[in-house]
Amino acid sequence: MKIDINCDMGESFGAYKIGADEEIIHFISSANIACGFHAGDPATMRKTVKLAQKYSVKIGAHPGFEDMKGFGRRNISISPEEAFDLVVYQIGALSGFVTAEGGTLHHVKPHGALYNMAALDRKLAEAIAEAVYKVNPELILYGLSESELIRAGEKLGLRTASEVFADRTYQKNGMLTPRVEKNALIKKDELAIKQVLTMVLEQKVVATNGEKVSIKADTICIHGDGEYAASFARLIYNTLQENGVKIKGV
Amino acid sequence: MKIDINCDMGESFGAYKIGADEEIIHFISSANIACGFHAGDPATMRKTVKLAQKYSVKIGAHPGFEDMKGFGRRNISISPEEAFDLVVYQIGALSGFVTAEGGTLHHVKPHGALYNMAALDRKLAEAIAEAVYKVNPELILYGLSESELIRAGEKLGLRTASEVFADRTYQKNGMLTPRVEKNALIKKDELAIKQVLTMVLEQKVVATNGEKVSIKADTICIHGDGEYAASFARLIYNTLQENGVKIKGV
Amino acid sequence: MKIDINCDMGESFGAYKIGADEEIIHFISSANIACGFHAGDPATMRKTVKLAQKYSVKIGAHPGFEDMKGFGRRNISISPEEAFDLVVYQIGALSGFVTAEGGTLHHVKPHGALYNMAALDRKLAEAIAEAVYKVNPELILYGLSESELIRAGEKLGLRTASEVFADRTYQKNGMLTPRVEKNALIKKDELAIKQVLTMVLEQKVVATNGEKVSIKADTICIHGDGEYAASFARLIYNTLQENGVKIKGV
Amino acid sequence: MKIDINCDMGESFGAYKIGADEEIIHFISSANIACGFHAGDPATMRKTVKLAQKYSVKIGAHPGFEDMKGFGRRNISISPEEAFDLVVYQIGALSGFVTAEGGTLHHVKPHGALYNMAALDRKLAEAIAEAVYKVNPELILYGLSESELIRAGEKLGLRTASEVFADRTYQKNGMLTPRVEKNALIKKDELAIKQVLTMVLEQKVVATNGEKVSIKADTICIHGDGEYAASFARLIYNTLQENGVKIKGV
Repeated sequence: MKIDINCDMGESFGAYKIGADEEIIHFISSANIACGFHAGDPATMRKTVKLAQKYSVKIGAHPGFEDMKGFGRRNISISPEEAFDLVVYQIGALSGFVTAEGGTLHHVKPHGALYNMAALDRKLAEAIAEAVYKVNPELILYGLSESELIRAGEKLGLRTASEVFADRTYQKNGMLTPRVEKNALIKKDELAIKQVLTMVLEQKVVATNGEKVSIKADTICIHGDGEYAASFARLIYNTLQENGVKIKGV
Repeated sequence: MKIDINCDMGESFGAYKIGADEEIIHFISSANIACGFHAGDPATMRKTVKLAQKYSVKIGAHPGFEDMKGFGRRNISISPEEAFDLVVYQIGALSGFVTAEGGTLHHVKPHGALYNMAALDRKLAEAIAEAVYKVNPELILYGLSESELIRAGEKLGLRTASEVFADRTYQKNGMLTPRVEKNALIKKDELAIKQVLTMVLEQKVVATNGEKVSIKADTICIHGDGEYAASFARLIYNTLQENGVKIKGV
Repeated sequence: MKIDINCDMGESFGAYKIGADEEIIHFISSANIACGFHAGDPATMRKTVKLAQKYSVKIGAHPGFEDMKGFGRRNISISPEEAFDLVVYQIGALSGFVTAEGGTLHHVKPHGALYNMAALDRKLAEAIAEAVYKVNPELILYGLSESELIRAGEKLGLRTASEVFADRTYQKNGMLTPRVEKNALIKKDELAIKQVLTMVLEQKVVATNGEKVSIKADTICIHGDGEYAASFARLIYNTLQENGVKIKGV
Repeated sequence: MKIDINCDMGESFGAYKIGADEEIIHFISSANIACGFHAGDPATMRKTVKLAQKYSVKIGAHPGFEDMKGFGRRNISISPEEAFDLVVYQIGALSGFVTAEGGTLHHVKPHGALYNMAALDRKLAEAIAEAVYKVNPELILYGLSESELIRAGEKLGLRTASEVFADRTYQKNGMLTPRVEKNALIKKDELAIKQVLTMVLEQKVVATNGEKVSIKADTICIHGDGEYAASFARLIYNTLQENGVKIKGV
């Protein structure tokens, strides 16, 4: 039994610092590294690639909207062609550092609003999947479990990783409860851990209506910012190992 | 007898257009494609890569300072490490498009102020050469003939291309006359053409003091903007061919 | 009988040039000057303010999304508070140049996607109107005729100018035909001119279903880019004057 | 006996936070608010203006180079005209928020590399002073004591404030010891406090060679970032008051 734990990293830039990358890195198997559009900068990309290499963590590109002020979290109405170009550019840029440091790029996970839009919009999803495929068909596409992005990747023959969240609730159809709903977030650590265990051990989740429904969980997303990010990462890592689950990149 | 003609390309972005790329492409053998920092954007990079492929023109990355408003022509006091990161990022980004389109990246030529600073500053030159080398040691480094950048490339074992200018005068030490001098520019096409022929056929140039001095000329830079850019490109291309010189990437 | 003709201006920046400002300026009474977010830069703002002053054209701020690559034409999902801040910032920045040149800021017209979103979204419209009001309650708010933006301005007690378009068709409810419809644009100059005359002289427009419906027309928007922008501007200007209509800022 | 204490503020932006503005604000009399070019964003500008108003701290514009990744600390070779435009734009933008909140803009202090370059380069200094003067001749220009910037302001008839530093040593000619020198910084709080007292009470400073030399000190700059920024601010504030010096905007 094994699972991948992924975390967004390399979000600092210039004089600005976000995230506890040096602490979190111990508890994950995949790092999604910001590519300078919604966060990060060339120096941070280089350092984060090296950090991931040092701890044998898989390196992924984490392309997002060009919107530093909105941290890539604001929807921007782009065409599929613009999405293709954005993603090719950012994968390429990170690949520069990965190659320069003698490493291997492992996966691509879109960020924030781009990730959410690509979960629902088939054309956007297909453009992103095609960008990944054309840069390197060996790359693994990370996307929301059951999303259009995962379907688009599969259609092209890409390896995909279905992502689930520790701290978000799920509806009976297997989709995330929208953030506008009151019960969208799981705030207690023990509940989040319990959900993760059920997801990983049973490939199921208890939906908000109490039903236990099937879910595909190849990788768990944990958050790298927030005051308790590192201690939560440690907790989830240790609990999974204690339950016989190996933490390992997809 | 052969020579490379290179031109900066892909400088348009969004709604903004600069350069007559579709016309100039017929008369050059190497295209230096802007990487979105001083000019260009992801969509333009993709289109320009395809344009170069269509006409069998060699594709080069043209990294510059992150200064769209200054078009990369303003000196910015960066550290060698910052230069390294800037160059790795931009080569990587362009490589994304080259790979996606099934092409091959051929060379790297820094842009504008970065090019000029790297001609004189050894540490900056070495950082740029190292960036090129670490991303791909097969890439050819284009730099000002007799510059620190060329020396830094050679020291690392990179192939280099010494660049000369059709429309700039040279001093008796083989260096360009600084732009602040009155006689820095050659404004008459016939004089520019004559200088190019002497450079290519004799590897010499008539300096501003009248002396004929040696020069290393692997590639000639022509400019893609300006009202008469395309007609001058055609003239230089035709004249060289009429004199038995083949136009061919280094 | 009089009407205002407005045009977006100052969209060039750095080495990039858009628009025929020096020609168009002769045929308009209000200039909407880009503020460096979707187009323009500080130098262009200064020059465009001076150009407007030279020809006694009213000066307006033309705030847009921070999206130079999309030219402010892509929707970005911002909060009303973010819209407020964007607009205050950009009005302020342009006011700096207007004050430095001894002029007076006359109006504010949001640009592109921000204009379109504020036509339909009441909260966004109110935030923008409040931004204008708080910076200077004497400023005139330009918006799409019958839009939420005009209503929000009126509610606050701002003077408003209802804008109509020469080259867009209207539906029987008085709203623009969406651009996705085939018949959204009027491509023949004589039809565009005819529509303008009806709008100005009768405050009516012939809708796409043939009905003549009422419309409020305080100001006509003409476009400053495109090959024939200046000749069309001249035509509309001359035709209106020949029909006894004075071209004059609201 | 009175002195002004100023601090750079409003350097956060989007999801990125720098500085302990809410703590430092208690111990200063002037806030230099970043204007979105080297740091800050529209939302942060609004909040910081309000914070300063709440504590009756004088509000200043803090224009810098457009270089978020370099935090405005990297020299950029701009022309005096470009400097003029940069400064007008940024003063204008901040004025938007000051006006919207019913406040008054009090001063202008250039940031980082722009401040340092304007201390030495007369033409740049004059362009900046002219920008301030043309936007509002009542604004007070803050600059390094004995600098070209102060001289340029005085020449135009602007009120100026000569700035001194608590944590930097001075040479016998009254100028700052360059940062490249080992003894450029004063690292012990008690020595910094002692220097400040001498500067304020005697308008003198003990130079690195031991001589006590004259200095003009209208305002003391303290730093808002760093782990101990707030406690040092409190110490300097309290010590000055205990010595009968009132902390008050110039």
